[in-house]
Amino acid sequence: MSPADAVRAMIADRRDLHAHAEPGWCEVRTASLVARRLAGLGYALRVGREVVAADRPGLPSAAELTAAYDRALAAGADPEYAALVRDGFTGVVATLATGRPGPVVALRFDIDANYGHESADPAHTAERGGYRSRTDGVHHSCGHDAHTAIGLAVARELADAVAAGRLSGEIRLIFQPAEEGLRGGPAMVAAGVADGIDVLLGCHIGVQARATGEVVAGYRRILASHKFDVRFRGRNAHAGISPHEGRNAVQAAAIAVQNLLAISRHGDGETRVNVGTIEGGETRNSVPAHALLRCEVRADDNAILGYLRDRVDGVVLGAAAVTGVEASVETAGGAAGADSTPALAAVVARAAAGVDGVTRVRDTADFKGSDDMSSFMNAVQAAGGQAVYFGLGSRLGDVHHAPGFDVDDDALVIGRDVFLGCLRELGVLG
Amino acid sequence: MSPADAVRAMIADRRDLHAHAEPGWCEVRTASLVARRLAGLGYALRVGREVVAADRPGLPSAAELTAAYDRALAAGADPEYAALVRDGFTGVVATLATGRPGPVVALRFDIDANYGHESADPAHTAERGGYRSRTDGVHHSCGHDAHTAIGLAVARELADAVAAGRLSGEIRLIFQPAEEGLRGGPAMVAAGVADGIDVLLGCHIGVQARATGEVVAGYRRILASHKFDVRFRGRNAHAGISPHEGRNAVQAAAIAVQNLLAISRHGDGETRVNVGTIEGGETRNSVPAHALLRCEVRADDNAILGYLRDRVDGVVLGAAAVTGVEASVETAGGAAGADSTPALAAVVARAAAGVDGVTRVRDTADFKGSDDMSSFMNAVQAAGGQAVYFGLGSRLGDVHHAPGFDVDDDALVIGRDVFLGCLRELGVLG
Amino acid sequence: MSPADAVRAMIADRRDLHAHAEPGWCEVRTASLVARRLAGLGYALRVGREVVAADRPGLPSAAELTAAYDRALAAGADPEYAALVRDGFTGVVATLATGRPGPVVALRFDIDANYGHESADPAHTAERGGYRSRTDGVHHSCGHDAHTAIGLAVARELADAVAAGRLSGEIRLIFQPAEEGLRGGPAMVAAGVADGIDVLLGCHIGVQARATGEVVAGYRRILASHKFDVRFRGRNAHAGISPHEGRNAVQAAAIAVQNLLAISRHGDGETRVNVGTIEGGETRNSVPAHALLRCEVRADDNAILGYLRDRVDGVVLGAAAVTGVEASVETAGGAAGADSTPALAAVVARAAAGVDGVTRVRDTADFKGSDDMSSFMNAVQAAGGQAVYFGLGSRLGDVHHAPGFDVDDDALVIGRDVFLGCLRELGVLG
Amino acid sequence: MSPADAVRAMIADRRDLHAHAEPGWCEVRTASLVARRLAGLGYALRVGREVVAADRPGLPSAAELTAAYDRALAAGADPEYAALVRDGFTGVVATLATGRPGPVVALRFDIDANYGHESADPAHTAERGGYRSRTDGVHHSCGHDAHTAIGLAVARELADAVAAGRLSGEIRLIFQPAEEGLRGGPAMVAAGVADGIDVLLGCHIGVQARATGEVVAGYRRILASHKFDVRFRGRNAHAGISPHEGRNAVQAAAIAVQNLLAISRHGDGETRVNVGTIEGGETRNSVPAHALLRCEVRADDNAILGYLRDRVDGVVLGAAAVTGVEASVETAGGAAGADSTPALAAVVARAAAGVDGVTRVRDTADFKGSDDMSSFMNAVQAAGGQAVYFGLGSRLGDVHHAPGFDVDDDALVIGRDVFLGCLRELGVLG
Repeated sequence: MSPADAVRAMIADRRDLHAHAEPGWCEVRTASLVARRLAGLGYALRVGREVVAADRPGLPSAAELTAAYDRALAAGADPEYAALVRDGFTGVVATLATGRPGPVVALRFDIDANYGHESADPAHTAERGGYRSRTDGVHHSCGHDAHTAIGLAVARELADAVAAGRLSGEIRLIFQPAEEGLRGGPAMVAAGVADGIDVLLGCHIGVQARATGEVVAGYRRILASHKFDVRFRGRNAHAGISPHEGRNAVQAAAIAVQNLLAISRHGDGETRVNVGTIEGGETRNSVPAHALLRCEVRADDNAILGYLRDRVDGVVLGAAAVTGVEASVETAGGAAGADSTPALAAVVARAAAGVDGVTRVRDTADFKGSDDMSSFMNAVQAAGGQAVYFGLGSRLGDVHHAPGFDVDDDALVIGRDVFLGCLRELGVLG
Repeated sequence: MSPADAVRAMIADRRDLHAHAEPGWCEVRTASLVARRLAGLGYALRVGREVVAADRPGLPSAAELTAAYDRALAAGADPEYAALVRDGFTGVVATLATGRPGPVVALRFDIDANYGHESADPAHTAERGGYRSRTDGVHHSCGHDAHTAIGLAVARELADAVAAGRLSGEIRLIFQPAEEGLRGGPAMVAAGVADGIDVLLGCHIGVQARATGEVVAGYRRILASHKFDVRFRGRNAHAGISPHEGRNAVQAAAIAVQNLLAISRHGDGETRVNVGTIEGGETRNSVPAHALLRCEVRADDNAILGYLRDRVDGVVLGAAAVTGVEASVETAGGAAGADSTPALAAVVARAAAGVDGVTRVRDTADFKGSDDMSSFMNAVQAAGGQAVYFGLGSRLGDVHHAPGFDVDDDALVIGRDVFLGCLRELGVLG
Repeated sequence: MSPADAVRAMIADRRDLHAHAEPGWCEVRTASLVARRLAGLGYALRVGREVVAADRPGLPSAAELTAAYDRALAAGADPEYAALVRDGFTGVVATLATGRPGPVVALRFDIDANYGHESADPAHTAERGGYRSRTDGVHHSCGHDAHTAIGLAVARELADAVAAGRLSGEIRLIFQPAEEGLRGGPAMVAAGVADGIDVLLGCHIGVQARATGEVVAGYRRILASHKFDVRFRGRNAHAGISPHEGRNAVQAAAIAVQNLLAISRHGDGETRVNVGTIEGGETRNSVPAHALLRCEVRADDNAILGYLRDRVDGVVLGAAAVTGVEASVETAGGAAGADSTPALAAVVARAAAGVDGVTRVRDTADFKGSDDMSSFMNAVQAAGGQAVYFGLGSRLGDVHHAPGFDVDDDALVIGRDVFLGCLRELGVLG
Repeated sequence: MSPADAVRAMIADRRDLHAHAEPGWCEVRTASLVARRLAGLGYALRVGREVVAADRPGLPSAAELTAAYDRALAAGADPEYAALVRDGFTGVVATLATGRPGPVVALRFDIDANYGHESADPAHTAERGGYRSRTDGVHHSCGHDAHTAIGLAVARELADAVAAGRLSGEIRLIFQPAEEGLRGGPAMVAAGVADGIDVLLGCHIGVQARATGEVVAGYRRILASHKFDVRFRGRNAHAGISPHEGRNAVQAAAIAVQNLLAISRHGDGETRVNVGTIEGGETRNSVPAHALLRCEVRADDNAILGYLRDRVDGVVLGAAAVTGVEASVETAGGAAGADSTPALAAVVARAAAGVDGVTRVRDTADFKGSDDMSSFMNAVQAAGGQAVYFGLGSRLGDVHHAPGFDVDDDALVIGRDVFLGCLRELGVLG
């Protein structure tokens, strides 16, 4: 394949993935097509239950998983691999064992999309380009479509390299589901996917780097995060005749929203609180008897995260007491914080400096978000390996997780080439 | 039909309606079966667009209406009448013109069920009796199943009476959809259904009368009410990386909930405020960009209702300003207050005193709820007629609009007999 | 004294009392001058500890009581009686025993002013008339100055009547302190002041009757009320360096304010909630460690009041839990509800109909406020006597408790004459 | 004076200042005694209006200033200097011109105490040591007593040094009032006090360094801060009779408190929000018509501070709209952020390493609080000079601004010696 064709293929892959956005644990089409492609390139494949542990927080209902499977098949999923990854086991690990001495180098790519409606504005690039999400209420608004397409492009180059005898050591490509909500990383680490990795590389597009050509060599301060659901259970009553007989769950939820957001800042580091969704009540003229909040907190470290979780418990307990309802807090995901290994970030910096189109390389930046890449990083670093999460600059259509989010296709080429440059710097790619 | 059979039929009707609960504007099965029954009894029928004006607040979406129609047919609706009442025209008016001089006496029955899950507790009478709602999330938790069954039983007795030459004047039976939300009454009055009525009778089961055998001869203080939706539109942003770029619609909704409930009491009379349902947000880790509240306010009179509506506007505007989002308030229904005509309530009191099973007759009680019976009452009284809304006591399984609500079948017999007794007191039934 | 002079004296008394407004338990000048005047008219006097029990809720601090005493002396208090009523025993009971058979008829007048700044607007009648309150932050904004002046005028007429042999039975004039906060009535009843009363009369100016010439013959629905203080105790911390080490008492207080106001209306009757004052925090840049709310709830009956008190406890407990602070609720006053005895209200109605200047007599009206006249009424009615609280219409400068509140002097003459008319109707005044 | 006597004197000074705590702009005793002492040591003095500009935000009332002056004189202030610094001009600048070439080196010490009650716990060091604050409601809970005592001790050493010919250049000692609230620094800079400084040194005790023996060579991230008052003006009404006629200012304040605290974190850096004090309302049974909040926001930089100020305006405007009251936001102080000059921090690090008792020297730490030392630092750095704010570790009795706060006297000796060591490192002290 000519270099120009390779670029065109990568961009076509990205747009295809974007148009067929699949939310966490539902990436049947994505995972099956990735597996099929890599098998064709000669990689050894492990998929589904082999690489995803059974304990998966925030798993959708059986009905949703089945609907996702049916939708994927209808949209061209590979039937053989689809059968292996269905029901929420949507992970893929592909290995190239070169037979030549060298380290185990892993590259990790996340593959899921977000819930949220994508913009239908004619000025929105995905609308204009004809690849707006066809999945109602699901949108690649975090750029994982780009990560996956880069992964496929790197895979192709490495397959060529091994054929040409230019690759040594072992290459492990990890395609991870359910990054949103910090659910897939822990489940893959629990399945042993991070075992034996000497060097771990990953990237995120557009975070703290909103210009194409910019590279952050290694993020620090990937925030620790805890995802949780809050449920309130009250008592219905006729809102006109006997409101005093009700116990108002929506009122409790409103108190909780205000006061979760008002949890005090911490003197020792950054914190975040979000109530992403709320739903509650049964009908207009009855005191509402149930409510559900989907929430998250994030912090610079686990100690601060512990503080936030303590305060969350206080707020929820108190909000319930104010209105006389019952409440519970249930964990829905989470991850510790992480920092890139400085020496490996220096490798990225050197590699990036040699890549066409790169105009600015920054040594580091605070990530300020959470990402379950941290689960892999912590596992690798704890075992003595090195890990880096680098930032791939891209012009964006809107901020992350917003309806108008889209990335710049030019950034994908840079991303692929930084990965390949790192492998050269590490001496495994000739 | 023997008296005992008539009672058994009325109870069977009630349970059948209960099991096939249909929400407002979706009562296709109910209305079509009512129409079929009355046509068979010799009544002259007007249905659908003839008796329901096109302007119907709070109409469900076309998809919901179609689904309701399909569900109704599958559950045994009368196909001929179903076609006439589908798409939200679920009203029925049946007339017996006796040809003998006398007043136009109208009896009004409401037929819709509520949104809300019915209790599956084995101790719940409807569960035990095998007639729990088969419609997921819809429940006859306000007793309109009883009202409708009473209406059918009265209709049968009057048909017998006209055949026997014991009835004079004109009888008009009004089966009204969408009482919940105060939507059907205005639409039927606008279609002329209240025109020419001299005497209007109606009843509600279990309101301020929770013992079987008790009758409230005529309610006063049916509250004026305004139903409205509040929408907030903000801006999404990544909750970790750039929360400050978001504009939080759920936060605005939480402020609105708390402060709608905190609108000051009024010195001149009673008020009610309810936020029945809330929904908002897109996904856990994005600052939420939309929220919707379904609300209502009620008051002793229109002046106080005006005060509440002014304060609602202030709360919504202010809540939006606090978080920098946009907001709107949209009307979803409403009705003025009403009081029974005292002279007609005295008729009910005399009639009730003569009914088997009645143990206590109270002259009046404050209704404390709203009911769009008030639309008919106001129209009839404004034209010089008399109107009464009487209370039919019933032991209840739980308070109105609660999951365990159910009525006492014995109360239905009393209800039928009070209506018939009133017609005798009025001299139209021999 | 000529009739015209008597009216001039009554108005001068009212303005003098208005200018020297004294808050609850601090009415040293008022009580001492009342006592001196009545002693001069030949009444038998009981003052201070003889008529006020030691248990007085909401008593100001010793320092405030001493300051009030000093201020009263400086402003012309009677030194002898001042010494008897100081330190919060500011009640006066004056008796005329006629020696002729007849009932014990008591007239009760409250004498305290409110906290709150009086308007200095040149259009305000008290400013224009030169009798604006000289006591900073204290204002006769509830008309007790008028009640007291009426009491003095009635006293003079009755003294003349007894001298002329036109009075029978026994007259008991009760001048009650600390009505605001419902504190003085219970303390006088506990001291036996209501014992042996056959007929009790009292009036309030301007309540539900804002036109001079209007009379409400007997209020019903004087609301039951509970007064309470809420204290929150948290923990200070530097607001920049270590805000997470604080426990925010002002935040808890804010949550409590919002949710006290949002306590659900009750289906069985009216409710009121007010947080009258708030104070909290130590300095701008420290997480605040204390807060205090002064609050009240009111209700149509004691059952509903109990509901409110339960909910108050829930709100306070919950608000404290939300922010991790400690909280307490302390009683500061209260009274049950009351209704006028209908037969005695009929006496008032007949009397009022014969009074010059009366243009409209209403049988009854809902009081909608609370008043510890209810303590006397309940005591008298429980012992088999009759009690009435009648409404004395008056044009007002502003609503009660507002800075521009003032009454119409013409109403005072009507008030005096209604009391005298009642005594004639009762047959004790010839 | 022997070295041991010098230490004893310094500690005695600190305890005397602690016992006579004076709040911002009221430091008449402190400033006058400092001036008297330095004059005695041969310094050239500039005091009062010479060194404090007339525009002083957050100035107490004239009555408070007069009371502070009277209290200071009664407590042993120097009458001559007291007359010069009274009425809120409580700054002192002392100069030693050595006549020998060298830089202008300024040392800045802040002298004011905080509002807040000091702990009377017998375990509290100041209580045990007999030097608990005698000023009710004012407490040296931020350690400025230590700063001032260190300044006096350094002054004595330098006076000895100049006498011995061991000092060169010019020494400027700045004793700054009203640091709390960020009010004194801008007023002294505006008066030209920072002009011509080549090297500026200052320290804070106990911030991010809670062990005696620890030194932070130069803080970075002194937060930018804005201090402001929020006033709400509503309308009184009787809380029972006509609550709907009120406009509730305390409710608005409660909404503002909750939502100021809930202003979203910012993705680009740290933020702080505090509502330090609240007061509102007139009396228990009236809808409250006024409220006042004393607040502050802080941020890592001025852009983020601007974001916070925008959101504050939105919250206040919105809270007022919710309850229909009027609102205003008034500036009460503020300062930009600052960072120490790294080269000068290196000087401090070298000096500290040579000081007895120093066990750990950290190059830098985030200050995380605000301090109007930043006003001097920004002025000096903008003019080409160097500035450092170093951290003086101390065991603390409690966190800053808390009732049990007190410092470790041993830390004072280290503080003095680090200043002197810096002057040696800079070559101005032999």
